[in-house]
Amino acid sequence: MVNIAVLGYGTVGSGVVEVINTNHESINKRAGQEINIKYVLDLRDFPGDPVQEVLVHDYEIIANDPEVDIVVEVMGGIEPAYTFVKRALEAGKSVCTSNKALVAKHGPELMEIAKEKNINFLFEASCGGGIPIIRALNGSLTADEVDEITGILNGTTNYMMYKMATEGSDFDVVLKEAQQKGYAEADPTADVEGYDACRKIAILSSLAYGKFLNYEDVYTEGITKITPEDMLYAEELGMTIKLLGTSRKLGEDTFTALVAPFLVGQKSPLYSVNDVFNAVFVHGNMLGDAMFYGSGAGKLPTASAVVADVVDEAKNLHENIATNWSNEPMKLTPMDETEGRFFVRVKGVTEAQAEAAFGKLQIVKVASLPDEFGFITECMKQKEYKEKISKLNGEVIAMIRVKD
Amino acid sequence: MVNIAVLGYGTVGSGVVEVINTNHESINKRAGQEINIKYVLDLRDFPGDPVQEVLVHDYEIIANDPEVDIVVEVMGGIEPAYTFVKRALEAGKSVCTSNKALVAKHGPELMEIAKEKNINFLFEASCGGGIPIIRALNGSLTADEVDEITGILNGTTNYMMYKMATEGSDFDVVLKEAQQKGYAEADPTADVEGYDACRKIAILSSLAYGKFLNYEDVYTEGITKITPEDMLYAEELGMTIKLLGTSRKLGEDTFTALVAPFLVGQKSPLYSVNDVFNAVFVHGNMLGDAMFYGSGAGKLPTASAVVADVVDEAKNLHENIATNWSNEPMKLTPMDETEGRFFVRVKGVTEAQAEAAFGKLQIVKVASLPDEFGFITECMKQKEYKEKISKLNGEVIAMIRVKD
Repeated sequence: MVNIAVLGYGTVGSGVVEVINTNHESINKRAGQEINIKYVLDLRDFPGDPVQEVLVHDYEIIANDPEVDIVVEVMGGIEPAYTFVKRALEAGKSVCTSNKALVAKHGPELMEIAKEKNINFLFEASCGGGIPIIRALNGSLTADEVDEITGILNGTTNYMMYKMATEGSDFDVVLKEAQQKGYAEADPTADVEGYDACRKIAILSSLAYGKFLNYEDVYTEGITKITPEDMLYAEELGMTIKLLGTSRKLGEDTFTALVAPFLVGQKSPLYSVNDVFNAVFVHGNMLGDAMFYGSGAGKLPTASAVVADVVDEAKNLHENIATNWSNEPMKLTPMDETEGRFFVRVKGVTEAQAEAAFGKLQIVKVASLPDEFGFITECMKQKEYKEKISKLNGEVIAMIRVKD
Repeated sequence: MVNIAVLGYGTVGSGVVEVINTNHESINKRAGQEINIKYVLDLRDFPGDPVQEVLVHDYEIIANDPEVDIVVEVMGGIEPAYTFVKRALEAGKSVCTSNKALVAKHGPELMEIAKEKNINFLFEASCGGGIPIIRALNGSLTADEVDEITGILNGTTNYMMYKMATEGSDFDVVLKEAQQKGYAEADPTADVEGYDACRKIAILSSLAYGKFLNYEDVYTEGITKITPEDMLYAEELGMTIKLLGTSRKLGEDTFTALVAPFLVGQKSPLYSVNDVFNAVFVHGNMLGDAMFYGSGAGKLPTASAVVADVVDEAKNLHENIATNWSNEPMKLTPMDETEGRFFVRVKGVTEAQAEAAFGKLQIVKVASLPDEFGFITECMKQKEYKEKISKLNGEVIAMIRVKD
């Protein structure tokens, strides 16, 4: 029997209990032994809920119980999650977590302790909810060198972009709708400003390329400036706009990473990832294109990924599962030196003037916006784009990157 | 050092050698030791190719060499692959294969020997080429009970369906095109009749549900009857036609499985899987919807999956990796008892007559086909559909199942 303690009985925590109870037979079979929930930690009481029997309010009870093999941290936030997780690992208990903020900030230290103690610190649910993307990077794509990861990593913003694209609504309208449906929180900053996606692409990149990417180094732009007019251009181009977290390995020690809205064409499998779904596109040097798609959030999908980690940890109780993770810092190419194509909406200039500045352009016009036009540049460094756009005398209404 | 022998230096075999040579550093790191290609077996010689140094023509050399730890079978076909693989396993050598025909036919016996000998028989590349779907079923979705698998499992037919849908061409025209591009073989039967997809859905279902599905029990219908006119109806419905292999677990011991062309709507993530790409949709009772997408065939993607198996076997040289596989036979619900919605094209009857037979229908008309119309039935058992359609006095031009 493997004893686990679940820290936090919120959405994910209650989901973990539900998954283990519902599928206990198949889960125990796969784990090779019975998974027993010995404790659930929460400050609140839940009278009438069977969880009350194993509920404790004091972490000391868990930390000091040598029978607890695995600690499941699903509280969220940095503190007290960090302190609790660190203590558990130092006490030789494996930990799994859905907490992207914790992994993005303290991953290197916690991975190090787990390695030293020959136990495991797993975090499948921290990126892409139920999508088994971390396991794919760690254990499936082992014959490949991954050179690109591009993900729709935030369900809230994907829902909003989808609604803006299909219904022509304003940002504020779809945000309110997302809040009413429970997809967006009262304070939507972490989602709409891209902070959530930023932590996720930092974690995925660290696993894929074998160097630690600090999320604070990742240029991050949210979706707050995207307008229904931008969506009209996207439609005219046969494209759509998505918030992407993306990173590339361009050479042995050359990496780029950013989070931003991108124009995505129909040839990309990410184009048709709609609603609250998430997807992670991976390019391997042998495998070519692959994509993993599923529910990026939600109680049971997230809990399903957490419990899959519990199963792995139960199967490897005193053996550190090898991953590609390393604590050596990843150095990113400065944004101005990164290359891409840029979609620009301008006013007060002519097409000829734009082409004089940029060379041959793909021009696009929207009938309902007669006072302006849009164009897509060739592939160029961001600094080159900035130089050229500064020479145009008109007004730049919007600039959105293009995903190739 | 782990010594491997590659059986067959055709497309996949040469891909395996290329993957191991190209990514040797990262592969060795992940395997925890050096992967050494000690032999390549082929009847032919390859003068000038470095493989010539390790080339042998006689399987006895490999079978009798105790230094060979892993045999990589990428010859295809049942014989001599079956005899070679069985001998290797009996000699205590782990085997990995890309050979779906072998796994679908002899999987139970070969899995059994591997288990007895405490070695491994892995076949990631046998379904979906480079897509790590088997690893996902075995090792990632361990908290879930999978209740549906639906895949676009054959790249050749997906290419053909895509071309017919987008270009309005005839079956024969796109088949010739696929042959010219090297996507379809001179004898395209295994692809276009659905036999290839049938073996793959049988293997995936066996892994997902923990009982062995004999591919010979799976009702299989190919794409040879699909016409440009069917595609016009699909377009009118905002759908497309795909060859799907699909299976469901409907109760503790109730399973359905079939291979057939299906009308697929835009809400399905399978709708936008185009060209030669493959994708496998999985529904878990906790995870909900997930999809795995990638190259279903091709030299390097397939070889990438084979080599990932080699890495796993090298890491677990004398330990059988637990899977959900069991040799207990899966019993399928007879096709007449399975439920679904049916799209039908009819001639010589009125809409009123059709609705008299079927009840309320979704009627669809194509302007360029004025002498006929189409309808989609409610969900019903196949035998009920057959009874009702036999009462209609007109001509049934086509029937295609609808994917819900």
